Amino acid sequence: MKTAAIIGGGVIGGGWLARFLLNGWDVRLYDPDPACVRKIEAVLENARHALPMLYDFALPDEGRLTVCATLVEAVAGADWIQESVPERLDVKHAIFADIQAYCSAQAIIGSSTSGFKPSELQQNSQNPQQIIVTHPFNPVYLLPLIELVPSPVNSEALIARAQDLLRSVGLYPLRVRKEIDAHIADRFLEAVWREGLWLIKDGIATTEEIDDAIRYGFGLRWAQMGLFETYRIAGGEAGMAHFIAQFGPCLKWPWTKLMDVPELTEELTDKIAAQSDAQSGDKSIRELERLRDNNLIVMLRALKQQNSAAGALLNQHEAGLRPTLDTNGPMVTVRRHVPVDWTDYNGHMNEGRYGQVFSDAADAVMVHVGADAAYIKAGKSYFTVETAVKYLQETHAGSVVEVHSKVTVGAGKKLGLFHEMRRLDGTVLATCDQLMIHVDLETRRSSLPTGDVQIKVEALAAAFKSEDML
Amino acid sequence: MKTAAIIGGGVIGGGWLARFLLNGWDVRLYDPDPACVRKIEAVLENARHALPMLYDFALPDEGRLTVCATLVEAVAGADWIQESVPERLDVKHAIFADIQAYCSAQAIIGSSTSGFKPSELQQNSQNPQQIIVTHPFNPVYLLPLIELVPSPVNSEALIARAQDLLRSVGLYPLRVRKEIDAHIADRFLEAVWREGLWLIKDGIATTEEIDDAIRYGFGLRWAQMGLFETYRIAGGEAGMAHFIAQFGPCLKWPWTKLMDVPELTEELTDKIAAQSDAQSGDKSIRELERLRDNNLIVMLRALKQQNSAAGALLNQHEAGLRPTLDTNGPMVTVRRHVPVDWTDYNGHMNEGRYGQVFSDAADAVMVHVGADAAYIKAGKSYFTVETAVKYLQETHAGSVVEVHSKVTVGAGKKLGLFHEMRRLDGTVLATCDQLMIHVDLETRRSSLPTGDVQIKVEALAAAFKSEDML
Repeated sequence: MKTAAIIGGGVIGGGWLARFLLNGWDVRLYDPDPACVRKIEAVLENARHALPMLYDFALPDEGRLTVCATLVEAVAGADWIQESVPERLDVKHAIFADIQAYCSAQAIIGSSTSGFKPSELQQNSQNPQQIIVTHPFNPVYLLPLIELVPSPVNSEALIARAQDLLRSVGLYPLRVRKEIDAHIADRFLEAVWREGLWLIKDGIATTEEIDDAIRYGFGLRWAQMGLFETYRIAGGEAGMAHFIAQFGPCLKWPWTKLMDVPELTEELTDKIAAQSDAQSGDKSIRELERLRDNNLIVMLRALKQQNSAAGALLNQHEAGLRPTLDTNGPMVTVRRHVPVDWTDYNGHMNEGRYGQVFSDAADAVMVHVGADAAYIKAGKSYFTVETAVKYLQETHAGSVVEVHSKVTVGAGKKLGLFHEMRRLDGTVLATCDQLMIHVDLETRRSSLPTGDVQIKVEALAAAFKSEDML
Repeated sequence: MKTAAIIGGGVIGGGWLARFLLNGWDVRLYDPDPACVRKIEAVLENARHALPMLYDFALPDEGRLTVCATLVEAVAGADWIQESVPERLDVKHAIFADIQAYCSAQAIIGSSTSGFKPSELQQNSQNPQQIIVTHPFNPVYLLPLIELVPSPVNSEALIARAQDLLRSVGLYPLRVRKEIDAHIADRFLEAVWREGLWLIKDGIATTEEIDDAIRYGFGLRWAQMGLFETYRIAGGEAGMAHFIAQFGPCLKWPWTKLMDVPELTEELTDKIAAQSDAQSGDKSIRELERLRDNNLIVMLRALKQQNSAAGALLNQHEAGLRPTLDTNGPMVTVRRHVPVDWTDYNGHMNEGRYGQVFSDAADAVMVHVGADAAYIKAGKSYFTVETAVKYLQETHAGSVVEVHSKVTVGAGKKLGLFHEMRRLDGTVLATCDQLMIHVDLETRRSSLPTGDVQIKVEALAAAFKSEDML
């Protein structure tokens, strides 16, 4: 069992605390602010909701959390000490002196600083080699990135140990090659923030419009590939040097006239092209495009399920795509492409998704008979009680599937459906027998459907009894 | 049926073409480059794979694609004309003159320019009011953002019509308030590109490390909230003005010394804070945090399913979380949190996901008996033939569920499992009877399991026959 000491319990310290605690570490918190426990509880509540949902297996049992009255209690014997106090060098120096008076010489002291270099933090320290920068990103309990910045006094052994410990709690330590003010990511954030301020000041866009310009466009690209691999694709088969030749000149365009821009010498172009080859050269542009597209599809579909960001736009567009159910013949309740997030590593549609398709088919019948969102809001609904699925054929991402449905039972509280999932050539992929019961959502007990719903259900059942419509 | 004319058929023109065509428009392509058809086919193949997967209903039937030998053929009678020729103002002026000689006066002419202002494009035009900037983002068939930039000569009626047409093909027209070089997004991209060049030149990071610094950290934040709403959360209950007070000063830090930075006057601070209130003020910081976290969870889980970007990191971490199956007692084959992407708008776990949990339970048994990834790779596997699920209780996002499984049949080619999904208090949420058949993956026919697998399956079946372990 490992122990972490969290020094400074704001949003960032709290995020570190949650990360360690939920990965089974014991955690000791020290923060002289009396409000810190309340703040930490709020972060922990968020983290307990969120972090375990990332995984398809349970995390280890939570470690023990101790709120310490003194710094010495927190750091004595701790394996990892994370400093997240305000960004003032004198404050950090004072805290490091106190920590090092009591902590183990083997402990690693990571600083959450977003601006200072490790060599600055190490000034005046008795034991500078145990202090490194480990700069996290909010929310620390969800985002994996840690900028790990050593100075020349940190040993390779200490760096390797720090990387192992960070990886063990699900973080990604990115080692920064040379120390520099603000490390890597904050330099980008800073540059974008500065542009944002100009755009607002000059009345070009509001904060919301700027956010939309990011999250409906390049933000989605960056979430999965970042900057250079995205541009490698833009360069096409001609490669990264070609892209730089194309894109480079715009750095001389008018809006950049105030900026100091590195000269695009042949040497710099070659350096970038070689690094890009090392990063992505094992994949063709075609493969990178497919990778990018599949990532975008699954992220967009995930946001669609949350009806949030670009996913909300998709739902608005999709509202116009829902077909009206034609009951003069076999009812086609689903017609769709199998998306890449529905398949296993062999590209076969997952067993669980067959169930989802049949559930969607039932939804289409529900909407048709009037047991729709408004009906549910008014307190009534059908609940599925039993399904029996027969799996007949495999299917793949990109295939089009249809479901033909009929109403086998439509009397009283009961609604029985029989679904066939088919390829467009008629091949039956799977069948599903589904029994639903009408429920009063207030009492949570079975009840009779009301008015039109009952009439429509009975009509469908009668129609399908009189002939085999499938 | 609407008709679009695509003038210039590179990656951007091809993306526009696919967007219109797959949304049911007829499309006419004009590009004098003889290689354009091949390039367009490649984009179309990607788009046909990707775009329909975003939706849970089928898109309209594809429109008709005509490759035109002359510009006049392409633009005559078209409702929308999209220009995506190289970024040279003289080239664009010449193309607009040709287009306007033949197109309808009612047609909208959108330019994909990433740098020019609409008033520049409109210079010397006979009919400047039909030309606007509609700047897309690659891949155009997936990303919804279009920067719609009018000049003062474009009428509100034309702008409204352009927005409606773009929305009808699933795009999000973001109207830019004042024309400006490079619009909005490319100013950000430019600023980040410039920083990236410095970091590489100075040997701080490679292209791959920069990409990792983006996609494992703030890239994920930006994909769903952008810049300002993210920072509103960072400011906490104290609000946006407080955040600016905190973050503002870093613009005077050393690494920004070469940049021209807007002065953070009280007026500018108030403007930003008021815009942020208008954007997000209806939600508390707590609600914004939950929204952000749920979006991050579903995007990370989506990338995890693809084993890509930050999702690959999650899979690496998760590999250490998979428990060993203990068969000395009831087999607990699943223990997990119900994630937010598994629930409907009421927060109930979707019917289809019950099936997924039982499928995961079967996977745990498979791994235990040795019918694991290596076994599948060697050409054998179990396929599910039938499942019968009884739904007994509802469950919610954040709940912990367990599955207790037993082997009911384990003879020859057959493997029967019985699963109970439970809450931790023992309440049974659902049961599943599952019949699997052993298959030779080469012949795709049933076959006997080999060696250890057969022995282990039989042992489990015998154990569970002799006593009720559940």
